Amino acid sequence: MSYTLAEIAARFGERVLGDAGVKISQISTLEHAKSDQISFLTNRKYHAQLANTQAGAVILGEADCDATSLPRIISKNPYACFARVSALLNPAAQAAPGIHPAAVVGAGTVIDPTASIAAAAVIGEGVVIGAHSVIGAGCFVGDHVVIGRGVLLYPRVVIYHRCVIGDRLIAHSGAVIGSDGFGIAMDEGRWIKIPQIGRVLIGDDVEIGANTTIDRGALDDTVIEEGVKLDNQIQIAHNVRIGAHTAIAGCVGIAGSTTIGKHCQIGGSAGILGHLKIADGVVIASFTLIGKSIPESGSYAGIFPFGKTEDWRKNAVHLRHLDDMAKRIKVLEQKLLKQESSKGSTE
Amino acid sequence: MSYTLAEIAARFGERVLGDAGVKISQISTLEHAKSDQISFLTNRKYHAQLANTQAGAVILGEADCDATSLPRIISKNPYACFARVSALLNPAAQAAPGIHPAAVVGAGTVIDPTASIAAAAVIGEGVVIGAHSVIGAGCFVGDHVVIGRGVLLYPRVVIYHRCVIGDRLIAHSGAVIGSDGFGIAMDEGRWIKIPQIGRVLIGDDVEIGANTTIDRGALDDTVIEEGVKLDNQIQIAHNVRIGAHTAIAGCVGIAGSTTIGKHCQIGGSAGILGHLKIADGVVIASFTLIGKSIPESGSYAGIFPFGKTEDWRKNAVHLRHLDDMAKRIKVLEQKLLKQESSKGSTE
Amino acid sequence: MSYTLAEIAARFGERVLGDAGVKISQISTLEHAKSDQISFLTNRKYHAQLANTQAGAVILGEADCDATSLPRIISKNPYACFARVSALLNPAAQAAPGIHPAAVVGAGTVIDPTASIAAAAVIGEGVVIGAHSVIGAGCFVGDHVVIGRGVLLYPRVVIYHRCVIGDRLIAHSGAVIGSDGFGIAMDEGRWIKIPQIGRVLIGDDVEIGANTTIDRGALDDTVIEEGVKLDNQIQIAHNVRIGAHTAIAGCVGIAGSTTIGKHCQIGGSAGILGHLKIADGVVIASFTLIGKSIPESGSYAGIFPFGKTEDWRKNAVHLRHLDDMAKRIKVLEQKLLKQESSKGSTE
Repeated sequence: MSYTLAEIAARFGERVLGDAGVKISQISTLEHAKSDQISFLTNRKYHAQLANTQAGAVILGEADCDATSLPRIISKNPYACFARVSALLNPAAQAAPGIHPAAVVGAGTVIDPTASIAAAAVIGEGVVIGAHSVIGAGCFVGDHVVIGRGVLLYPRVVIYHRCVIGDRLIAHSGAVIGSDGFGIAMDEGRWIKIPQIGRVLIGDDVEIGANTTIDRGALDDTVIEEGVKLDNQIQIAHNVRIGAHTAIAGCVGIAGSTTIGKHCQIGGSAGILGHLKIADGVVIASFTLIGKSIPESGSYAGIFPFGKTEDWRKNAVHLRHLDDMAKRIKVLEQKLLKQESSKGSTE
Repeated sequence: MSYTLAEIAARFGERVLGDAGVKISQISTLEHAKSDQISFLTNRKYHAQLANTQAGAVILGEADCDATSLPRIISKNPYACFARVSALLNPAAQAAPGIHPAAVVGAGTVIDPTASIAAAAVIGEGVVIGAHSVIGAGCFVGDHVVIGRGVLLYPRVVIYHRCVIGDRLIAHSGAVIGSDGFGIAMDEGRWIKIPQIGRVLIGDDVEIGANTTIDRGALDDTVIEEGVKLDNQIQIAHNVRIGAHTAIAGCVGIAGSTTIGKHCQIGGSAGILGHLKIADGVVIASFTLIGKSIPESGSYAGIFPFGKTEDWRKNAVHLRHLDDMAKRIKVLEQKLLKQESSKGSTE
Repeated sequence: MSYTLAEIAARFGERVLGDAGVKISQISTLEHAKSDQISFLTNRKYHAQLANTQAGAVILGEADCDATSLPRIISKNPYACFARVSALLNPAAQAAPGIHPAAVVGAGTVIDPTASIAAAAVIGEGVVIGAHSVIGAGCFVGDHVVIGRGVLLYPRVVIYHRCVIGDRLIAHSGAVIGSDGFGIAMDEGRWIKIPQIGRVLIGDDVEIGANTTIDRGALDDTVIEEGVKLDNQIQIAHNVRIGAHTAIAGCVGIAGSTTIGKHCQIGGSAGILGHLKIADGVVIASFTLIGKSIPESGSYAGIFPFGKTEDWRKNAVHLRHLDDMAKRIKVLEQKLLKQESSKGSTE
């Protein structure tokens, strides 16, 4: 499959400079692109690579429109344009509709005839699966789950009973949706389990990374709003709500009953404690623990800077004495102040 | 299924105030409860919700017994009472006994006739599975594993060969029990694998969260004692021992050969280095790295406080100079001391 | 199976002291070894256990050659010797060659007759699986994957389409290789998915822990070089390259497009941000975030030291005022300097 640069630009409403007739069949990096491939520049750091690229065409921002004489698409948002061109050139594989003979489907389950259920998938009772949805090999879908249209579950995704999944969810292998929240009550030295009777509700256009876990609610539901993007190995506890179009990087943990706003961005391995409220538009750095609510949008961080181990050790030891240090500074200030005032009085 | 408030209270030996005849069919939050539902108050923060709840009854602590005129159960431990009432109203689903035709069972395996083996489960050779245990869809149970009574493995749990599982384990999807510990020896620039020949031994009444991993021992066994509760995505390395009734929140990592006491509580994303001993009754804050043994019960923390990124950056830069700062304070103190003593001598 | 100490030593070119005829059938810890078992000492901390061991023989370093009168192997690298002896005494279980009737294999797939495909495994189309490789129960291998010789996939490993796996990979349950990288572009308030069209390439002699995830490249490939050892629950993002013989402990996260050198060691729960370059031979402490490139080998750390929660709280509060503290110290120094110079001028 190939397109002329003109066809590509026209499809996405972008502008072409240079030879619009060049044929493009794939997208690649500046470093590795060949003459029938298009590349892109979204970071000034790679300007040198632009000079040496073998690409047949490139996607550039307005500010870089003269940075090369190669055939080029000039876009207001070259990164989004790159995403769209890549999607055009790399259409998703189509799974054959129907139920594989080695899949197991429970009673009362309604599967759209355009949907695809792969081998070794196990679907419970009373499930609904919408048009063009794909349930990968070895997936498990619990009783009374409702799955929308155009959903793609890669192999070995688990969805527990009664969860509700919107349209176009992409869930990667090992993701677990609807497992029990960590609800326990201490009673005379032993933990008693609290039944987790809520569900997980997932909006449209969500993506869930490999081995990410989302627990069902204890009483009310855990909610992932539309357009949320979750990377791999994220843990979302019971009764969390994640606002629309929030993106969360890998290995983040979010504790129970916390509400995260819309359009937030959370860096890798960050953590957010339970029962907090994070405003819309909050950006949280990687490796930062958020220990109280954030009522205002903005950028937040709390990371211990790394260094050579010997330097770190020398400096870190003083962290146990910061309070003492602060007090000693105060004493010094008071002594000097006293000196100054006594000197003033003697002058 | 519904019960009168009197029936519920009697069953758990609790006291009723108000109309004991109210019919209760479910448990819910103060905010969402309906008139045939019971709710509870365990946190003073939600007192305002108590005033507005539509619940038919509530569970309260002794101190709050007059906080509402609604029919109410007064309990010494209202959170545990809530857990028990919820379990009464939400009995666990019963799996049909027997082996699904799409399950695979190895030679010499003994499965109690009351146990349930779901579709796509694969059970090895010489396995023993006790009464009323449920092996979910797509689970794998390795050769010579012994599983007690009343165990519930949700779909896609893996138990490696020779592990021993007590009664009433609940393990959530994606949990892996008995994978090889990370044992490698460096030899002339290459790593040699050290066979991991120990097992994982799990006591009674343990719960293991989704995608949690517990490695088998290198030589001796990894041990999870009775009543331990593990949240999702926890990593427990080889030869760790976790004491009875300890609870560990999500994303915690525990390195090899560490022993954790009984009745400990470990917060989310905390870490504990290897070959350490943590006493009984230790509470560890989220996001804290424990780098040496803790011989005494108590509460421990080590978290970098978060702030606005610009403030964090301004302050964090000084962490590389704390030792220098400490030295400069000392110099200042010595100079002032000298001044004082010289002043003293001239006075 | 048992061997004389002489046979064992001869096989690995090691030296024996004491009775070389003692029969050895297993390896164990000093604490638990019996008279037909061999143990080892690699840490001086356990010297006391050496005195009390019931082992029939021990493996010792040159420096400890006289530390016991037990029959003993004296090795330059006793830990590597222990690994080799353990592997001799504990040969890996052999899976029966052939394809289990409950496995599903796609069209055009070529499986070596010595390979073993377990029940409930699903293999795609156009796959190649080499000699003596073992695909465990419930594994998924995507279309056009190439798997080398002597590979061992434990149950429930997933390998996405087109990935290339070298010889002798060991991958533990729940590992996911080749899932989509976290590639999204913001466009007018919504995220657009960037197709991930690269692959994962894995060299020879790699081990991948349980529930570890390795994302495929966005355009170019993600690369794990030969001899890399990955513990459990590690997240490796798209286009990362990990150099040969690097070992990474559990729960580490590595963000996109970062290159890690050869022979590095990365401690548990550490993190490395994206687009960085880490030199060969770098050692990174547990729980450390690496936020910029490391051009030189050496040991690096950045950990907040833990303490009693009350002490931590008292000290940590000053971290928000370190910049202020530094300024106040400077003011004090300047005042004292001024005093000194004015005193000098009046003297």
